[in-house]
Amino acid sequence: MSNVSLDSIFETLREAQTRLALETRLAKDRALRSVMNSINASRAEMLRANGADVDAARSAGVKEALVDRLLLNEERIDAVIRGIDTVVRQEDPIGRVRGWTLPNGLLIEETTVPLGVAAIIYESRPNVTADAFCLAYKAGCAILLRGSSAALESNRAIVKAIKEGLGAGGGIPEAAALAESGSRDEVDLILAARGKIDVVLPRGGRELIRWVVENARIPVIETGEGNCHIYVEAGADMAKAADIIENAKIQKPGACNAVETVLVRRDAAAELMPLLAERLAGRVELRCDAASKAAAGAPPGLILKDALESDWETEFLDYILAVKVVDSLDEAVEHINRYGTKHSEAILTRDMEAADSFCRRVDAACVYVNASTRFTDGGEFGFGAELGISTQKFHARGPMGLEALTTIKYRIRGSGQIRML
Amino acid sequence: MSNVSLDSIFETLREAQTRLALETRLAKDRALRSVMNSINASRAEMLRANGADVDAARSAGVKEALVDRLLLNEERIDAVIRGIDTVVRQEDPIGRVRGWTLPNGLLIEETTVPLGVAAIIYESRPNVTADAFCLAYKAGCAILLRGSSAALESNRAIVKAIKEGLGAGGGIPEAAALAESGSRDEVDLILAARGKIDVVLPRGGRELIRWVVENARIPVIETGEGNCHIYVEAGADMAKAADIIENAKIQKPGACNAVETVLVRRDAAAELMPLLAERLAGRVELRCDAASKAAAGAPPGLILKDALESDWETEFLDYILAVKVVDSLDEAVEHINRYGTKHSEAILTRDMEAADSFCRRVDAACVYVNASTRFTDGGEFGFGAELGISTQKFHARGPMGLEALTTIKYRIRGSGQIRML
Repeated sequence: MSNVSLDSIFETLREAQTRLALETRLAKDRALRSVMNSINASRAEMLRANGADVDAARSAGVKEALVDRLLLNEERIDAVIRGIDTVVRQEDPIGRVRGWTLPNGLLIEETTVPLGVAAIIYESRPNVTADAFCLAYKAGCAILLRGSSAALESNRAIVKAIKEGLGAGGGIPEAAALAESGSRDEVDLILAARGKIDVVLPRGGRELIRWVVENARIPVIETGEGNCHIYVEAGADMAKAADIIENAKIQKPGACNAVETVLVRRDAAAELMPLLAERLAGRVELRCDAASKAAAGAPPGLILKDALESDWETEFLDYILAVKVVDSLDEAVEHINRYGTKHSEAILTRDMEAADSFCRRVDAACVYVNASTRFTDGGEFGFGAELGISTQKFHARGPMGLEALTTIKYRIRGSGQIRML
Repeated sequence: MSNVSLDSIFETLREAQTRLALETRLAKDRALRSVMNSINASRAEMLRANGADVDAARSAGVKEALVDRLLLNEERIDAVIRGIDTVVRQEDPIGRVRGWTLPNGLLIEETTVPLGVAAIIYESRPNVTADAFCLAYKAGCAILLRGSSAALESNRAIVKAIKEGLGAGGGIPEAAALAESGSRDEVDLILAARGKIDVVLPRGGRELIRWVVENARIPVIETGEGNCHIYVEAGADMAKAADIIENAKIQKPGACNAVETVLVRRDAAAELMPLLAERLAGRVELRCDAASKAAAGAPPGLILKDALESDWETEFLDYILAVKVVDSLDEAVEHINRYGTKHSEAILTRDMEAADSFCRRVDAACVYVNASTRFTDGGEFGFGAELGISTQKFHARGPMGLEALTTIKYRIRGSGQIRML
């Protein structure tokens, strides 16, 4: 794709966004419902296109775990449609007002408005195409969708269905565009598009995110990297603790909100470790420090290795769990703030003061008390879909729904006021 | 200043911010009141230090307008103290909560927390030192103050008073630090401080802001550049229009919220232009297009030149006003969205529909109806002080008070919840 054609896409998106910003909620919801119908009616076409992508991936020897990320099926299309439905049902994030009147009578209204034109750069999963589009549209933003070349046929079919739905529903089809070249040059042009793209969202592996953060000349929302911890205190409900750790590790190990390191307070190790070792034996490799290793026992099938320093900083995204004994809440908080990625962190305790201290002192988007870290997700939070999980503190943090694509504008209404001082 | 010493400042600020984040509103307000007392008690010392800066500037042949920016006097110190008082009286921006409960019983609380460690890079005006500090402190943020070398003695005296006040009031003196080298290297080290500084605010001239935006590897909030417009429709109250334009141009021409171009609808030119020409004659140079020039007449003392294309894009910051006739609201909006800097834009009209359309379609932080653009200011808005005027849409927009230095954290409280799907 040449500069020229990408520039013309930028222009089209800007022009479409200017119109979309003026649309009412009714008009936006009508268009999105039409997109739901269009996606529903395009199932065969989308599955055929996705089949071609999947076949090509398998032929190229891509691992099945990655092929699964690429895969569309009826259930996943159902989920996409349900996601759009949830977004439709949500309040319009645009046009919310809070205001106040100055002593001289000026009325100041802080009003939410669309952020503008967004770009999302993502890997494999084609459902992201529809999720990101529908959030952007409802928030009044045009969006450039830059998926991976491995999912190009799938994404083409989905974007075709989106544009047809928008057209049929009185919407603005030009508010969504697929970047199709698959080249790194294309990404670089997006990252350099100051004044053309208002925000770029990288969503995918660590390498992609780093590349975008390092190279972008436009605002970025960093997403996804999750080196998450669960810290267990003595006195916690240990049966529930084993359930929670098992869930956070095993239910979807490749997710960014899966747990990677368990921190056990010294006086809890003797009770927790045997339970945990038994629960995870044969399913998860444990990488323990000396104290947690000594307490783990040796249930059949347990794979237990000595933890290395590098394990504390690794997002395994696999059936591997690092375990470390700590002497205090302070040590747990320090470890997390040192090695964590500010994503999702949990404490399991019955001590209210400890829970409060942990939540206040751990620097992360999501801090949990007595629950699995796996809930950090736009869908689970009730947002319908998500643009990703922001691990930065600037502009957006945690699971990003509609509000991440808004900004404010002050409207000031007067009757001739001038400034005296 | 070597890298080492700046790095140790970064570390001290981080450590102080970690403690400050846990302070109650009572503790923060007590410390800030003590800073008010300390600044009040240090007047002589601050004025002496400022006298040295002012003398040095005059000796170096600095223009009086710039010397005035540097100047402290009793009234300006009064204003600084009043600003801190207003910030003290404001609600704590930290610890605000909104939450909801998921179907499985998980309670999700979105809580406001401090953004972290801020850096402000600013020119001349020493009052910015105290303004930025007090907003940061109330928002639980540590701050690195990097003023201009021309104001070094003044800033040293102010920061000394701040730290003494914090010490006497049970606060955290390490939460404020002055960067003193005056070198460009120091700025570059701040801009590269990923993970050490959470946001940098450039506040000053166009060159400084451009440098920071182009070179920062950390989040930036762009401030200040204001190529502001006032658009006048037929049917507007023309006497008020002349008052507003005069005020927006003359009351403080060097301010970013001063008007630079007036757009006059063709059917309003015959009524407005003679009034405006008479009002501004001898005080403001007009740079007019042919139509507005023809309508202006020739009152005694009027300086009237032909406008050049470059005038539409210039922030004069001077007694110069560009004037252009437009044929429609659309043309006015297009002109503003093309040449404006997304700062402050006004429409003067009696037509409700035109006012609404203008406010919705002009892309700027502040849009005014029938009032002077000069109100875009944290103090005028009631924020007590301001960190600057954000002209970007990301994270903060318009006059920045306490909220610009906050972010959110999700606290999730459960009783053993695990994720099923």
